[in-house]
Amino acid sequence: MRINRQMLSSSYRLWTMANKNIKEQVVNGIRDKVLTLDTMNQSVKNMEYAVLGPILLRAMELEKELQQVLALCQYPDLLNSPAFPEDAKKRAKRILQACEGHSTGSYSASTGIQMIREDVAGYIEHRDGGIASDPENIFLSTGATSAIMAVLNLLVSGKGKNRTGVMIPIPQYPLYSASLAQFDAVQINYYLDEEHHWALDVAELQEALDQAKTHCQPRVLCVINPGNPTGQVLSHENIEAVIRFACEEHLFLMADEVYQENIYAEGSQFHSFKKVLMEMGPPYAQQLELASFHSCSKGYMGKCGFRGGYTEVVNMDPAVKQQMLKLLSVWVCPPVPGQIVMDIVMNPPQPGEPSYEQFQQEKKGVLGDLAEKAWLTEKILNKQPGIHCNPVQGAMFSFPRIELPPKALQRAKELGQAADMFFCIKLLEETGICVVPGSGFGQKDGTYHFRMTILPSLEKLEILLEKMSQFYAKFTQEYS
Amino acid sequence: MRINRQMLSSSYRLWTMANKNIKEQVVNGIRDKVLTLDTMNQSVKNMEYAVLGPILLRAMELEKELQQVLALCQYPDLLNSPAFPEDAKKRAKRILQACEGHSTGSYSASTGIQMIREDVAGYIEHRDGGIASDPENIFLSTGATSAIMAVLNLLVSGKGKNRTGVMIPIPQYPLYSASLAQFDAVQINYYLDEEHHWALDVAELQEALDQAKTHCQPRVLCVINPGNPTGQVLSHENIEAVIRFACEEHLFLMADEVYQENIYAEGSQFHSFKKVLMEMGPPYAQQLELASFHSCSKGYMGKCGFRGGYTEVVNMDPAVKQQMLKLLSVWVCPPVPGQIVMDIVMNPPQPGEPSYEQFQQEKKGVLGDLAEKAWLTEKILNKQPGIHCNPVQGAMFSFPRIELPPKALQRAKELGQAADMFFCIKLLEETGICVVPGSGFGQKDGTYHFRMTILPSLEKLEILLEKMSQFYAKFTQEYS
Repeated sequence: MRINRQMLSSSYRLWTMANKNIKEQVVNGIRDKVLTLDTMNQSVKNMEYAVLGPILLRAMELEKELQQVLALCQYPDLLNSPAFPEDAKKRAKRILQACEGHSTGSYSASTGIQMIREDVAGYIEHRDGGIASDPENIFLSTGATSAIMAVLNLLVSGKGKNRTGVMIPIPQYPLYSASLAQFDAVQINYYLDEEHHWALDVAELQEALDQAKTHCQPRVLCVINPGNPTGQVLSHENIEAVIRFACEEHLFLMADEVYQENIYAEGSQFHSFKKVLMEMGPPYAQQLELASFHSCSKGYMGKCGFRGGYTEVVNMDPAVKQQMLKLLSVWVCPPVPGQIVMDIVMNPPQPGEPSYEQFQQEKKGVLGDLAEKAWLTEKILNKQPGIHCNPVQGAMFSFPRIELPPKALQRAKELGQAADMFFCIKLLEETGICVVPGSGFGQKDGTYHFRMTILPSLEKLEILLEKMSQFYAKFTQEYS
Repeated sequence: MRINRQMLSSSYRLWTMANKNIKEQVVNGIRDKVLTLDTMNQSVKNMEYAVLGPILLRAMELEKELQQVLALCQYPDLLNSPAFPEDAKKRAKRILQACEGHSTGSYSASTGIQMIREDVAGYIEHRDGGIASDPENIFLSTGATSAIMAVLNLLVSGKGKNRTGVMIPIPQYPLYSASLAQFDAVQINYYLDEEHHWALDVAELQEALDQAKTHCQPRVLCVINPGNPTGQVLSHENIEAVIRFACEEHLFLMADEVYQENIYAEGSQFHSFKKVLMEMGPPYAQQLELASFHSCSKGYMGKCGFRGGYTEVVNMDPAVKQQMLKLLSVWVCPPVPGQIVMDIVMNPPQPGEPSYEQFQQEKKGVLGDLAEKAWLTEKILNKQPGIHCNPVQGAMFSFPRIELPPKALQRAKELGQAADMFFCIKLLEETGICVVPGSGFGQKDGTYHFRMTILPSLEKLEILLEKMSQFYAKFTQEYS
């Protein structure tokens, strides 16, 4: 895999940052600064954010129609060009019509362009087999990130033992731990079951909750499905059980479903929390407060640089929805190009439209390719004794466990590094392969992991996995 | 002025929201919700955000080359089209080269694309007559908003009497008061001097500071120049005095300079805080911690929907800069299209390039037009007894003071509305003209204002101003 210098150096910088207390600073003023590590917001300082994993996510091959519609929206003179297919033009005109002043350069409403909210609702209805979705419950956002932070922000309250507790999976996507640190909420860990394909066990939820009740007020349960970094896909049954648990324990459920299009494993299928909830009927369907998150960064498009996303809220108190609108209006509006990409992703070419065939082919190609790479990853890594890799049922990552020899643990300790960080840095230095240590995501004590994407091309991925296995063998030998 | 329905209804919704305690809610669950007005984050609830002013900001006529470069970046097949000028293609290629994977669809570094940070530094150096700017001090952001919130977030710490106090102008852009409420910081108001063209008086700063010291720890001074909503432009002398004050009082200075390109008044000129600071030399130049903010939403481009922006930090503790990087990486990265727009704005066509002439003409046209409208606004409004409008020296707004008759005050009180809100709603209902009441920005007790943009076309603006004056006359008569 070709890794460019900048990527390496960014990762390095972050690793350094995450692992050292940067104390020896050149202070180039005459007296103490106003803003120093000691005087700064301690919640931000306490926040950990060891990964800049996403920067390594390159865009997948972009779908042509999407590029065309974007170009037409940005430079409407092109609407007269014969070089563009009619359906792309029609779509661009429809979007421009919905923009303030018919221009992508204007601010939109803080909740997003109304037509796009309607298209998102249409996508959800279609996805969920006709179960209604109200555009007024859709809030467009800057990636899924800003929506997740907004909902968490609303939920955090109380002091001392009444402080909001938020249940998050371990391993987790570090946005959650970082936001909770920033909002000074109580993080409640529940562990996914690595021995059973990273399953979500309700007994584990109950245990974590009961323990947490002694020192905070648990009010939120976060679930990531398909899992990041763990790649598992929850079954229908499992989702039902989680919903019953959240309802009985009076928890607000946040469902991070940004990888909903990325399902690979034989027998795995995506079920949205919204759909399962609605099918369960009363009292659940009327009672459970749910926010589901999606983005245009994943799926088969991977237009992550555009920062498009949305949340759909279900059963949210109307007065709180108003507060959410207020919070979003401080951020003015989500970026309009991201909203447009979201619209195109939500509303793909239909049968009979000129771009339909090409679109279907590209989508199938991208997803089929990812499925093959998911399978390959598991297969190659598991050949190597000492590495254990669960099947990548969905999402874009594998999260293999590695056994590390005692001398490596010792050496890492001497360096003041997490042991898997030590391994990942060695891997990077010696092979140029850049993966993120499991300690950035959380893992059971005494276990070690790393996260790697399945995004490189099939042939590169194969070489990379073989190289990694060889390095691991050499490393364990060296430190045994 | 044609006002579309959606704009009206959004404004209405927000006004309603800001002014009523929405208590009478239909709670459609079986038992209490997890998340209600009572249980939600009280800091968010306490935050006021009465204006959705920005939504009324339509894009100005967009510059053609910008549209072309954007279209080329989104759909690189167009690089082969003879319909595009060579300099636009060259620029698009240069930008694509700097993007991860040569695609606008990829994530960038959290601080923004390196090349664009360098271009921003180049723009600043050029603007400041050659004073050096280090790209490592530039952080690209989602509009100026996210950068302002990030810096404020870093600065807020302490409890009780040690809680960070932040000095903000009154009237202010409500992002400041809203963020401070959200971060639970102490807001310290200093009043701009309406009798002297909204001047910033250092004696007033001192008084506000001294009072605040009794109940919090003032650590930050925010200045908006050119002023929003007040439109004043600070003189060189005034800026020097503010810098001396901030330095002596050991305050971190946040300079909101997003309207730096928008200067209209004869004799007014934009001086950046950075430039004045550096020219002042030691000890100020080495001591004052400064963050300056800019965006692509204003100026002559007004590409606000793209959400491009940056902050330049000066004399920031390197360890805190690392913390800022960490904070930004939680948000992953600013939207790439916004970064591209920022680049084009920072790096306009140069003499000799094919697009240069057209660009210069367009820029001159837009700014000249705004200058004329600024002058017209002041002239027409001041003809009307009871309305007092300061010269709009810069930015995009006028903030006229209106005298309101006793019966209007009485009626507003009965309705539980701010008096200027009452006036603005009547104005909207009877004329369709949508302006934002001064109470959303802050004003001296017993004075009433509204903010209006100078963006409508010259002829529409003239009609609108006349209509408004007539309405005011009728209104005061009716309630006298």
